[in-house]
This record gives sequence, C-alpha cells and structure tokens, in this order.
Amino acid sequence: MTRAVVLLSGGLDSATCLAIARAEGCECHALTIAYGQRHAVELDAARRVAAALSAASHKIIQIDLRAFGGSALTDDAIDVPKDGPGHPPSADPIPVTYVPARNTIFLAYAMGYAEVLDASRIYVGVNAVDYSGYPDCRPAFVEAFQRLADVATKAGVEGHGPRVVAPLMQMTKADIIRRGMALGIDYSLTHSCYDPTPDGRPCGRCDSCRIRDEAFAAVGNR
Amino acid sequence: MTRAVVLLSGGLDSATCLAIARAEGCECHALTIAYGQRHAVELDAARRVAAALSAASHKIIQIDLRAFGGSALTDDAIDVPKDGPGHPPSADPIPVTYVPARNTIFLAYAMGYAEVLDASRIYVGVNAVDYSGYPDCRPAFVEAFQRLADVATKAGVEGHGPRVVAPLMQMTKADIIRRGMALGIDYSLTHSCYDPTPDGRPCGRCDSCRIRDEAFAAVGNR
Repeated sequence: MTRAVVLLSGGLDSATCLAIARAEGCECHALTIAYGQRHAVELDAARRVAAALSAASHKIIQIDLRAFGGSALTDDAIDVPKDGPGHPPSADPIPVTYVPARNTIFLAYAMGYAEVLDASRIYVGVNAVDYSGYPDCRPAFVEAFQRLADVATKAGVEGHGPRVVAPLMQMTKADIIRRGMALGIDYSLTHSCYDPTPDGRPCGRCDSCRIRDEAFAAVGNR
Repeated sequence: MTRAVVLLSGGLDSATCLAIARAEGCECHALTIAYGQRHAVELDAARRVAAALSAASHKIIQIDLRAFGGSALTDDAIDVPKDGPGHPPSADPIPVTYVPARNTIFLAYAMGYAEVLDASRIYVGVNAVDYSGYPDCRPAFVEAFQRLADVATKAGVEGHGPRVVAPLMQMTKADIIRRGMALGIDYSLTHSCYDPTPDGRPCGRCDSCRIRDEAFAAVGNR
C-alpha cells in the first residue's frame, strides 16, 4: 500500500484531497499545521474530517507564523477584506490574506514527516483557479518544490524524493465539491471562513466564504 | 543598504555567515529557529553572537521538530554517536544526526521573514565539505531552493525571489575559522556540540565537537 502524508487544514479543498488520496489506494497520514491563524476553529474541522475519512493517523503540529506576521490571517493589524474583490482598493494583485511562505513551510514539514514515515507521496490541496493571486498555489510552485524534494531528502539521494501530488490544481471550486460528493464527503464537517464569529460560525462575507457559497450554489447544494 | 535575513544557530558556521553578510554591506536580521534540539544552549550562543556582531535585529522562533522525530537531535530514542565515523557501524551513509527537512524548513521560514521585511537576501551557513552526508547541505539543494524562492514569493512573481547566499558551501572548517577570525569573530561565544553536558559544556566526543576541535587545531588555535 502506498503511504502518503496528506496536508489537512479542515477546509473543503484539503478534505477533498484526503478523499482522493484514499480513493487512489493510499494509507493516509493526515498532517495539520496550526500556524496561529485567526480561524483555530479549522483545527476542530480537521479532526472531524480525518476521523470521517478514516485517516491512518492524524498529527497536529503547532507553529507560529504570527512571529513575523505580514498577512491578514496572521497579523491582527491587517483586516480580512469583507466586501469582495477590489474592496478595499489595492494596486497589489496578491490578496492581503496571502501568508508569506505558508505553503513552502507546510510542504517542508510534510516532506520531513514523509521521510520519518517512509511515505512516498505528499498530497496538498493547492488550487490555481480560485486563488490565482497566491504565488504558492501555482503549478510552477509545486514543480519547483518537487525538484527540491528530489535533492533535499534521504530518498532523493537514493533516487527521488516523495512525489508531491496536487490533484485539485486545475479544478474549479464547483468541480472540487462535485468530486468530493462523489467520494462521499460530508462537507458540513469542513470549515472555510477566514474570519469566523467568536462561536465559530462563518462570517459569510470574506473571499473564502464567498467562493465557497458560490460553488455550493453552482452545484445546486448548500 | 541591502537587507538580509541571516539564519543563526549559535554555531561557528552561522556566526561566520553573519560576519560575512555584514562585511558584504548588508543590514542583517538574524533569525534563530529553536527546533526542540537537545542543545538549547545554542540559543544563548545565538543571542551572544547576534549582539557581538551587531545584527540589526534578532528573532527567535520556536518550532517543534520533535513532533515527528527521526533524528538523534530530535528524538531521545536515538543516541548521538560519540566514537567517530563508523561507530556505531551503519550501512547508511547519512548520519543519524541528520534532521529530516531541517534546512528546507529553516529556509522556508527565512523566505517568509524576508518577504515580510522586504529583504533581498537570505544567508545560510550550509557547508558541503565537513557534513557531506547531509542531503540538504549540498550545492544542488541550495540551487533547488533558489528556484523555489523565485516562484514561491511575491517578489518572485514580480521578478525574482530573495537570493539565497551560502558563502561557506565549499570551505573547510579550518577555512571558515580563518575567515571568521579575519572578520574579528570571538568563537568562544559560539557553541557546536550535539550533546552538551547538563551545565552546557561541549561533550568533546560527538562528530560536531571532533570536527570543531580538529579545525581549531589545524589553524593553530583552540
């Protein structure tokens, strides 16, 4: 059985990614990285999803990206935008919800964990369609990380590093939801909001909520 | 003035790297990553070195590589070898002191911090000569990380990512010490041992102590 590390945030993309890894015959070791984001409610969602999709194990690692901030998700001084694209107006094509180096750090941890587990794959739910403003959600990023993994690891020295699999890369959010439903995911277990209410409910106004709600509407489901 | 993030462990390599970055005219922001290693005494050394070499700032980030272990430096179940190369005998050319993905994780943090500071360089004290058994201390690793940084960052989208500078890559430990002495480093501030005594003194027997002691002997100094 192919052993895989699956990055699992608790959002709908990574939940779908875990279901796909399982459908592809992998023994899935879920890895959740809690990075001091505003939405710690995601961690509960990650636990529910790992259990519902029968992950072989689920590890949560705490890291502190608030130590250097620089994103609306890790710095209280930067507000999460609530009024759709272009509000507030910005000359910067990269949204303030971009977290510097986040996906590189996540994949680096996944790579280390894969070395320790002797896992030959890493699944990551990055997607270039809905979040095209994030540099580290593009095919070129995944390809560059693959080349890094092929030299940075013990397995790489012996042949090639763990294979980085990004099955959602070219899918729309609606496609992702359709695929996940076909695989039996209960998306009510997942959480997507960037700025939930104090009791953990989605705000319904941030980009992540908007994209999610529009996608569920597109597939005729909420 | 060129702004740089300098990875600083408290050992002699990274201290020399900081001195070189300063000599090359950089405004140096030292970044120390405490990863649950056995030798936390390194952190005190990092603080002393940052102060002695007048870093513009010094940030310490705590991360937990013990969460997945897999190395003599992060897993109490694996002993630090004390009797030189080949003792205990092993068919594996990569030493048990190798920490899976450590340098990838360190450079990923440095890359994120460089994005937040708008720094155009990252200095890292990796060296292919004395530690040639570590996959993530080789030129191919640094080159692959550079290609990643060129696509993974906001600066990369706009042109190219922060430049990864590894000035010690091809130097012997004795060369490194000579260079640092020429730059005025007081190496008594640094710490190299993998397994210090409870009161923080070097064991004198691990690979890191041996290599350090041999190098100081070679330059006629201890």
